[in-house]
Amino acid sequence: MDRAEGAVTAAVLIIGDEILSGRTQDTNLRDIARYLGAHGIDLCEARTVPDVHEEIVAALNALRTRYDYVITTGGIGPTHDDITADAVAAAFGVELHEHPDILAMMTARWGDELNAARRRMARVPDGGELVNNPVQGPPGFTIGNVFVLAGVPQIMRGMLQDVGPRLKGGAVVVARTVRVEGSGEGAIAAPLEAVAKAHPAMSLGSYPFYEAGGYGSNLVLRGRDPDEVEATVHELIAALQAAGIANITRVEG
Amino acid sequence: MDRAEGAVTAAVLIIGDEILSGRTQDTNLRDIARYLGAHGIDLCEARTVPDVHEEIVAALNALRTRYDYVITTGGIGPTHDDITADAVAAAFGVELHEHPDILAMMTARWGDELNAARRRMARVPDGGELVNNPVQGPPGFTIGNVFVLAGVPQIMRGMLQDVGPRLKGGAVVVARTVRVEGSGEGAIAAPLEAVAKAHPAMSLGSYPFYEAGGYGSNLVLRGRDPDEVEATVHELIAALQAAGIANITRVEG
Repeated sequence: MDRAEGAVTAAVLIIGDEILSGRTQDTNLRDIARYLGAHGIDLCEARTVPDVHEEIVAALNALRTRYDYVITTGGIGPTHDDITADAVAAAFGVELHEHPDILAMMTARWGDELNAARRRMARVPDGGELVNNPVQGPPGFTIGNVFVLAGVPQIMRGMLQDVGPRLKGGAVVVARTVRVEGSGEGAIAAPLEAVAKAHPAMSLGSYPFYEAGGYGSNLVLRGRDPDEVEATVHELIAALQAAGIANITRVEG
Repeated sequence: MDRAEGAVTAAVLIIGDEILSGRTQDTNLRDIARYLGAHGIDLCEARTVPDVHEEIVAALNALRTRYDYVITTGGIGPTHDDITADAVAAAFGVELHEHPDILAMMTARWGDELNAARRRMARVPDGGELVNNPVQGPPGFTIGNVFVLAGVPQIMRGMLQDVGPRLKGGAVVVARTVRVEGSGEGAIAAPLEAVAKAHPAMSLGSYPFYEAGGYGSNLVLRGRDPDEVEATVHELIAALQAAGIANITRVEG
């Protein structure tokens, strides 16, 4: 799919040694991708970097200057390896200060137990605004075109609900899936490509599967014009049938 | 953890619109991370890019010049959106040609049904060598310090078995986990940081959890010297206990 004129673009920056060691299976990228898609925003790139200051700063600066929005996940807790806020401040060339609203929340929550580690979580780069955390713990924040969210998936998803209303949306992408069973991609490729070439504004992809019950491919059609998407689904089914392919079904998702 | 002198480094490049649309949950990064870790290689960065030629070329060139190895996944099938081989050739400034071994395999498999789409999968950049595919379909390939693997997880994992023997290994990282239940990171942070500072050659990370049964954090200690890792586990448990933290258990993984 050609990037539409005026498309709104985004990147995700995943921060954390635990992802790069394979200890933790990331799911935040998929959740953010779906959330942005529902808001009509193109997720164009994702990077995963370790808990290393210079790496976070460099990746964030590369992404924030290239895309309309960047969403980061991870590294905003109270422990010594949580260095995202400092790195974001450095990327923007500003200082960090304890945010009075977070400090008030934390004082109410912790009282005498508000130690130095917990206070670290009150630090926000100058010029930043808070992102609501409806789940647990202190809020995230946003500065410039960057949104800084937690890494714990359920907290990340909660914070994400406060991101959408601040985004300028694009035209929502509509996706339809045509499932072919019992034929491989080698048979599907020619009719799929012919239909794809006739619709340059759309994206047609083939995602093969191999399961205990058989094999085949899910052909996913994505575009911003719902009428064109619908017409293309019919054209593709006709082209597959004309190529002698059977067991074609239209599925949800 | 400071990057050890002479550490062997790697990056992963995930290629595919389906990851960036949120349609597919990537699991290849985790599997490759664990595989590299078992070979003593530091996975330092991962990028996910769309099925766009210029994006793949730019990301691959950025990563292959910076790290000892790059492993790519996705985009090597027969359909029009499978453009990884062409992009890898472009990144290395070489041509692609049909590899005689792959062509022989495919001719044996397909006979008269060896169409143009399937033949695309026989194309390998000049100078490339094959990576065995024990699962299904044509092999992957390697050129320079780059390994080009399939995106389908079970095929990717199969190909990965032929990557390890070609890598120069580092010292394997040993990981141990101390689990704290019923205490938050705010209480854990100070003793954890003190122990981390005493062991700069190691990585100590805190990964909080919130479950139906309660909350707490898994503290993961990683290092290349098994004796130091073991000693640090004991130091950390003692430091946590001295800070008044209860419900500390040593867990596998």
